[in-house]
Amino acid sequence: MSQPLVSIIMGSDSDWEVMQQAAIVLQQFAIPFEADIVSAHRTPEKMFAYAQTAHQRGIKVIIAGAGGAAHLPGMVAAISPLPVIGVPVKSTQSLDGWDSVLSILQMPSGVPVATVALNNARNAGILAAQILGCNDQEILQKVQQYKERLSNEVIQKAQQFQQKFTSR
Amino acid sequence: MSQPLVSIIMGSDSDWEVMQQAAIVLQQFAIPFEADIVSAHRTPEKMFAYAQTAHQRGIKVIIAGAGGAAHLPGMVAAISPLPVIGVPVKSTQSLDGWDSVLSILQMPSGVPVATVALNNARNAGILAAQILGCNDQEILQKVQQYKERLSNEVIQKAQQFQQKFTSR
Amino acid sequence: MSQPLVSIIMGSDSDWEVMQQAAIVLQQFAIPFEADIVSAHRTPEKMFAYAQTAHQRGIKVIIAGAGGAAHLPGMVAAISPLPVIGVPVKSTQSLDGWDSVLSILQMPSGVPVATVALNNARNAGILAAQILGCNDQEILQKVQQYKERLSNEVIQKAQQFQQKFTSR
Amino acid sequence: MSQPLVSIIMGSDSDWEVMQQAAIVLQQFAIPFEADIVSAHRTPEKMFAYAQTAHQRGIKVIIAGAGGAAHLPGMVAAISPLPVIGVPVKSTQSLDGWDSVLSILQMPSGVPVATVALNNARNAGILAAQILGCNDQEILQKVQQYKERLSNEVIQKAQQFQQKFTSR
Amino acid sequence: MSQPLVSIIMGSDSDWEVMQQAAIVLQQFAIPFEADIVSAHRTPEKMFAYAQTAHQRGIKVIIAGAGGAAHLPGMVAAISPLPVIGVPVKSTQSLDGWDSVLSILQMPSGVPVATVALNNARNAGILAAQILGCNDQEILQKVQQYKERLSNEVIQKAQQFQQKFTSR
Amino acid sequence: MSQPLVSIIMGSDSDWEVMQQAAIVLQQFAIPFEADIVSAHRTPEKMFAYAQTAHQRGIKVIIAGAGGAAHLPGMVAAISPLPVIGVPVKSTQSLDGWDSVLSILQMPSGVPVATVALNNARNAGILAAQILGCNDQEILQKVQQYKERLSNEVIQKAQQFQQKFTSR
Amino acid sequence: MSQPLVSIIMGSDSDWEVMQQAAIVLQQFAIPFEADIVSAHRTPEKMFAYAQTAHQRGIKVIIAGAGGAAHLPGMVAAISPLPVIGVPVKSTQSLDGWDSVLSILQMPSGVPVATVALNNARNAGILAAQILGCNDQEILQKVQQYKERLSNEVIQKAQQFQQKFTSR
Amino acid sequence: MSQPLVSIIMGSDSDWEVMQQAAIVLQQFAIPFEADIVSAHRTPEKMFAYAQTAHQRGIKVIIAGAGGAAHLPGMVAAISPLPVIGVPVKSTQSLDGWDSVLSILQMPSGVPVATVALNNARNAGILAAQILGCNDQEILQKVQQYKERLSNEVIQKAQQFQQKFTSR
Repeated sequence: MSQPLVSIIMGSDSDWEVMQQAAIVLQQFAIPFEADIVSAHRTPEKMFAYAQTAHQRGIKVIIAGAGGAAHLPGMVAAISPLPVIGVPVKSTQSLDGWDSVLSILQMPSGVPVATVALNNARNAGILAAQILGCNDQEILQKVQQYKERLSNEVIQKAQQFQQKFTSR
Repeated sequence: MSQPLVSIIMGSDSDWEVMQQAAIVLQQFAIPFEADIVSAHRTPEKMFAYAQTAHQRGIKVIIAGAGGAAHLPGMVAAISPLPVIGVPVKSTQSLDGWDSVLSILQMPSGVPVATVALNNARNAGILAAQILGCNDQEILQKVQQYKERLSNEVIQKAQQFQQKFTSR
Repeated sequence: MSQPLVSIIMGSDSDWEVMQQAAIVLQQFAIPFEADIVSAHRTPEKMFAYAQTAHQRGIKVIIAGAGGAAHLPGMVAAISPLPVIGVPVKSTQSLDGWDSVLSILQMPSGVPVATVALNNARNAGILAAQILGCNDQEILQKVQQYKERLSNEVIQKAQQFQQKFTSR
Repeated sequence: MSQPLVSIIMGSDSDWEVMQQAAIVLQQFAIPFEADIVSAHRTPEKMFAYAQTAHQRGIKVIIAGAGGAAHLPGMVAAISPLPVIGVPVKSTQSLDGWDSVLSILQMPSGVPVATVALNNARNAGILAAQILGCNDQEILQKVQQYKERLSNEVIQKAQQFQQKFTSR
Repeated sequence: MSQPLVSIIMGSDSDWEVMQQAAIVLQQFAIPFEADIVSAHRTPEKMFAYAQTAHQRGIKVIIAGAGGAAHLPGMVAAISPLPVIGVPVKSTQSLDGWDSVLSILQMPSGVPVATVALNNARNAGILAAQILGCNDQEILQKVQQYKERLSNEVIQKAQQFQQKFTSR
Repeated sequence: MSQPLVSIIMGSDSDWEVMQQAAIVLQQFAIPFEADIVSAHRTPEKMFAYAQTAHQRGIKVIIAGAGGAAHLPGMVAAISPLPVIGVPVKSTQSLDGWDSVLSILQMPSGVPVATVALNNARNAGILAAQILGCNDQEILQKVQQYKERLSNEVIQKAQQFQQKFTSR
Repeated sequence: MSQPLVSIIMGSDSDWEVMQQAAIVLQQFAIPFEADIVSAHRTPEKMFAYAQTAHQRGIKVIIAGAGGAAHLPGMVAAISPLPVIGVPVKSTQSLDGWDSVLSILQMPSGVPVATVALNNARNAGILAAQILGCNDQEILQKVQQYKERLSNEVIQKAQQFQQKFTSR
Repeated sequence: MSQPLVSIIMGSDSDWEVMQQAAIVLQQFAIPFEADIVSAHRTPEKMFAYAQTAHQRGIKVIIAGAGGAAHLPGMVAAISPLPVIGVPVKSTQSLDGWDSVLSILQMPSGVPVATVALNNARNAGILAAQILGCNDQEILQKVQQYKERLSNEVIQKAQQFQQKFTSR
């Protein structure tokens, strides 16, 4: 596999069920990526080392998912110069996901995290592609094709719906 | 002025008070940008035309700020292939900003908006710089210098605090 | 079927389970209607064309349902001169429906959406009938009969309850 | 003054500061209207009589504003066959307006209230015009002109903004 | 059965599953009561007549349960001079019960509703007994005995817990 | 002064600004009452003694106001057999009053607190009068007169409003 | 068993399912503890006696769990000089746990409760160990070893994840 | 000054207005302490070094205050074996303090933060004293005296209140 451009990290292996949607999207876009488990709270030293070196290893964008008092995206964004996409994960212990959302979104001035919707790792993958597409015409075209495919899917479903609906 | 790479748009000129923080950051990073008022609700056709052509005009990243039922960032993200950074603005009529946050953050699968904290246009500017820095070593270095400056400011303030604190 | 007066649209075919309650009510009132899938985020051009022409096709009232960061009702209201009834749908990914409610309800000055309760497409159908009833004595009478039927149902259930309750 | 078509009611005279925005809009549209203070909690008999007879007096649309545990819009909608537009008012004693919003919006099946944004009586006025416009080409055209005026205002402000912005 | 002193009403027969807990408590206290289905929204005339006459029929306390935009307790309190205990019911369509709680609790000055916890009709029954106990030594004693029984149950469970816990 | 029937307690003297509204209402109803500062958290022994003996001193109803994690109403309700009316006070340190509301309202089964709206001590006073009115025709009549006065005030304000409104 | 240093109490035996996680942690740290059921609302006298004497019996730290309008941790903290750790329990009747959290966390000045996350009794146990570790090098070392074990577990899971991930 | 036992840190010097209340309490208890500005997001390396060494420098308890997406208390708790008391600070940019509260309170299993009420640094100071009091009879007695002083203050205020109240 070629040099990964996107790095997907998550606080716990149980987050993979949500986070793999980012991986699936990146595969569709043929963007090389890596994935790892890095916990801000249980492996702070690994997190620190990871964030300090990611850009030196050729990583361009980081996708970080976490739940509850979710500090992983924000801490990585504090240490790394790379853009960090945060995915709030709705864990079983969380307050309906509000804790995950607020502790990732409400970062102080100076340290942004590009936050996507609760559990929406798929959007994190698309956003990573769009970021890389800023300087890569091929990826930008794939993003446009992706949008067209989305549009066509809806139009097709609308046609199927019309057939059922009008034949009531 | 050279070709703008970042485009800052907002739903109303009253949002400029918040949104100009993004402009200030981009000036600090010497990244050329443009700014305009585009309302999804009151100028839908301008919004549509804007979003369809922004990438053709050389724009790389869009920063969109709006308040209340804030549809501007999401609609632009629906139409344009570019990465869109959303700034929830706490307007006087909003429900303490919760409406702005949720209507920008909770985008459906397929159409991400990179959401930053409520009113935090400064972070939108930094994030835009980080996105451009993916393929621009000079900007990446500026981001790193910016982080160092932030760090130094805190360390200096900590020293001043220590002097006052220990001389109580 | 005669010229539809009400148009029911929704962002995804999965919303039909909720939205068909509007259709059922309109059938009960013998008000001709159409239904379609129109996504603000995935088919923005179709949405735009739909909203620009609905009133030209003889549509009098639009019912639009969507979930999460729900932009469909507000964007159609921005483009069409017709009254738009918004149905917040509680989708699986939403933050307990709060995002759907706030992104439909909290529209800025100038562009109202007539919002009904979460998932309550049935009320959207009744409201559409009431709007048409403003200038149609027959529909107005049907609305009054509907209210009487609701009342009679409750009174009948109260009688059944009394029989069970007093024979304890 | 000619026969009023819209009736604006509110639970307290202190709500007039918010509710008069509906009156101003209706005047702009030259739609005759009445206004009165009707409290569901303090004058329930007046409220009852009002709701039972409004449609007999030629009223076509009711706009009802209330705050806190706001029962006026819902109770009038329970009694009258007319469409009722509810304006949640953020009163000083309310829980940041959430009580006003939820007790107007979340009406049970069978009794809709067309709810607009918190304190947004102006949108209630526009919505009333749109409802009347369903069968009145003149009002429909005024709605379209209103939208164009909104659009032109934004475009003008955008031009002024550009002049200031580019001459920095 | 003797003259009922407490009247339990609810907006829908589906609320009985929650509201019967009030009935069970009143039976335990041997306080005569009645129960009925009265909907503020679907049978406003019955509600009005009920509230105007309850105190004339010898009722001393009203317990009213409702969900969503719950207007029954507040409207009955607006019309009747009797103390009204409100039970917010968490219905399937409600926003996690917040709408039920706020539209019952946040009554304006002049018209109180004695609100108990979400779905806690049992507490409504106890509160009704306490209210009647103000001038009835026998009921007051029963309330005291009820509290002792609660206390003894906990103490017994604590002993059982200790046996299991220490024999681990 | 005659034997007090109602006892108003609050956790801090700063709560008196809110709580005195209950006193004013009771004076209007000529119901003798006492008032005191009793803190569940800072004077637990006084609170305990107070709650154990209030009914022995002839008190019939307790009104307890507190803010933040407000335990006073619930703890007094746990100890005393009397009905306890809880007034959630919005203190400067509270989370917009939500903490006050929830820690008073959401009492467990067996120990009700009759909760009124945030800061609405006036309603607590009226509710106390209604409770005493259950067995006191004179107070019941005063409650009815109070309601009539409220109604007349609104009707008078409505007339004044009409004069201003029609003479625009 | 030796003198217990930590005392775990809870309002109901149904809370044990959550609270036993504290017990399991204390056993892992070999810290002697006791556990009991003490209800602030149903056994206020036992609660009072418990809180007054706990420190006299050699207890050093109290862990108190409760749900809904949860007064147990705060009342024990009001009476006892010992540090009290509060565990908000999400009970079936609670408003999604928000009531439990706010009525434990938002204690007034002068009476702190060391609150941990919703249902997270395990963290209460660890915190108790850390508190005892302030003056007990052996426990402090166990806390450090515990953290290392957590870290190793994550690192191991990360390795397993890598194996699965790279062999896709 | 003698060896500090408590360390107060905060993310920004603007937090000192809130956090100094902890310092004032510790001075009252004559507990030696230090204070410093340590930002998890802007000085991550200083934070890391601080947390790794605090217990080696003789610190027994850490008090950490931060606002917004507040990661300082949780990250220090992740690295240090010492008990960490978290103070959620309501900053101007925060969502009414909910972000501060949830991102400090909702820590995952294994890494507790002893959270106190919003802005309540005074309680953090008292809790630190109670923690040290576990093994220091002198401090424990001071805590007890502090509680008595709180109680006496309330009793005195109650007497003053009675004088004013009875002489009305």
